[in-house]
Amino acid sequence: MATVGLLHPGEMGAAVGGCLVSVGHEVLWDPAGRSRATTGRALSAKLTGAGFDRLIAKSTVIFSICPPHAAVDVARQVAATGYNGCYVDANAISVATAEQVCAVVTAAGATYVDGGIIGPPPEAAGHTRLYLSGPQANEVRPLFNRSALDARIAEGPQYAASSVKMAYAAWTKGSSALLLAARALARASGVERTLLAEWQLSQPHLTAQSERSAGSAASKGWRWVAEMEEIAASMTAAGLPDGFHEAAADVYDRACRADVPAGRRTATTPKETLETVISALM
Amino acid sequence: MATVGLLHPGEMGAAVGGCLVSVGHEVLWDPAGRSRATTGRALSAKLTGAGFDRLIAKSTVIFSICPPHAAVDVARQVAATGYNGCYVDANAISVATAEQVCAVVTAAGATYVDGGIIGPPPEAAGHTRLYLSGPQANEVRPLFNRSALDARIAEGPQYAASSVKMAYAAWTKGSSALLLAARALARASGVERTLLAEWQLSQPHLTAQSERSAGSAASKGWRWVAEMEEIAASMTAAGLPDGFHEAAADVYDRACRADVPAGRRTATTPKETLETVISALM
Repeated sequence: MATVGLLHPGEMGAAVGGCLVSVGHEVLWDPAGRSRATTGRALSAKLTGAGFDRLIAKSTVIFSICPPHAAVDVARQVAATGYNGCYVDANAISVATAEQVCAVVTAAGATYVDGGIIGPPPEAAGHTRLYLSGPQANEVRPLFNRSALDARIAEGPQYAASSVKMAYAAWTKGSSALLLAARALARASGVERTLLAEWQLSQPHLTAQSERSAGSAASKGWRWVAEMEEIAASMTAAGLPDGFHEAAADVYDRACRADVPAGRRTATTPKETLETVISALM
Repeated sequence: MATVGLLHPGEMGAAVGGCLVSVGHEVLWDPAGRSRATTGRALSAKLTGAGFDRLIAKSTVIFSICPPHAAVDVARQVAATGYNGCYVDANAISVATAEQVCAVVTAAGATYVDGGIIGPPPEAAGHTRLYLSGPQANEVRPLFNRSALDARIAEGPQYAASSVKMAYAAWTKGSSALLLAARALARASGVERTLLAEWQLSQPHLTAQSERSAGSAASKGWRWVAEMEEIAASMTAAGLPDGFHEAAADVYDRACRADVPAGRRTATTPKETLETVISALM
């Protein structure tokens, strides 16, 4: 059984940590400066609180699971300690950013494993995959044996795991932002009711889908902005147009500033959330 | 029963004309300089060939149904004759372009009705709507009574019909281009097989959907480029990001240049078409 460090458990990270704990590993996290919600999730996932230095000293593997805009900073903090274990970046980042993270941690003496998580926070088995790639990926994969997280080797180049995540989210989160923009365009043009009636006839899933998109954008848009920018950069690097995801970043940036009254976030209905988000886009 | 002019019947136009013929109207089209395929469709829809001048002189209503980039030119050709009947622009154009078409034809003495077609070429009833808007829309709608084309008034501002079409296609054709870009990104990053395996698990409809998108892009991309640009302009006019549809225009522009061997267009399988289109994107 391994001792694993987790930087920094949000909803996804806490659930991944919980998977490791469920099969017998010790998972350390650093509570310093973290919110009450984070602490609650860490407690319920049975993670072990530890100061940053102790986490670094005791962990043979460290997982970085954080908003994509923080990935390089987290790597720098770890590298600054001279950490020389295995460092897994499981964030939604481009190959270029993953290369940067790899360079930072390997310069300090660590080994780098590339990762990408697809699916919801893994609570029940069968819904979430952790893709891993790079020469040491096979040393990380078995940590999740018999857990609710399906860890798989992504065949292909060294940063295949990040690449799969980019291409997958390019559709899921990109299309979600596009749907909100289309509905906002109808609203702005004074034809939203007619569009909804037409959707009812020919695309009957889109009304509810746009409400779900609005809910996600309001609650998670703040960390999807950087993810969309990572995908836009990946598109550019591949010689493909970056406009879809530059626009999606803009949509999520506006949506997460939506004026949801404090404390009412979970109380609002999907329709109310949609109203708030569409207004914020325009 | 009315005499209706149709400029210039492609696949959609011929089917709309066929609907008018099916309920007893005479539909004139101008065969000059049109392809053998166009002539075949016009014949099978029982449209009546007529020189341009005769079409103008005899028609009490003229429908413009053409690729969006030609909409203003068609309006200018009609206005140059001093046509003073009813002019219906049923193309996928922005409000700004519709305003331009309206200004051109009304300056010559015609009345303008805004239109937008949603659905496939209307052959069987129940699948295709013609939205109409503007003060004279109610004079055009009854022409389609008892036909396979469901003509409806789009409530709202004068150019509501064009606006509905823009918002509707913003999703359908925008998302189709996005899906192709996502798959091309996976291909370019060397992880397409892993992406397809992940889609199989969590988005099982996307593989076939991307093949259908490739088929449409290869066959219709040439007229969707301008449509995506019209939507991008509509987004900008509404204060929304134009990047989704600028990128989609780029995707369709590349896709329709895909090197499908001449004469094999209908013979290629969906998988072969997808290969050709994805290669053209990269």
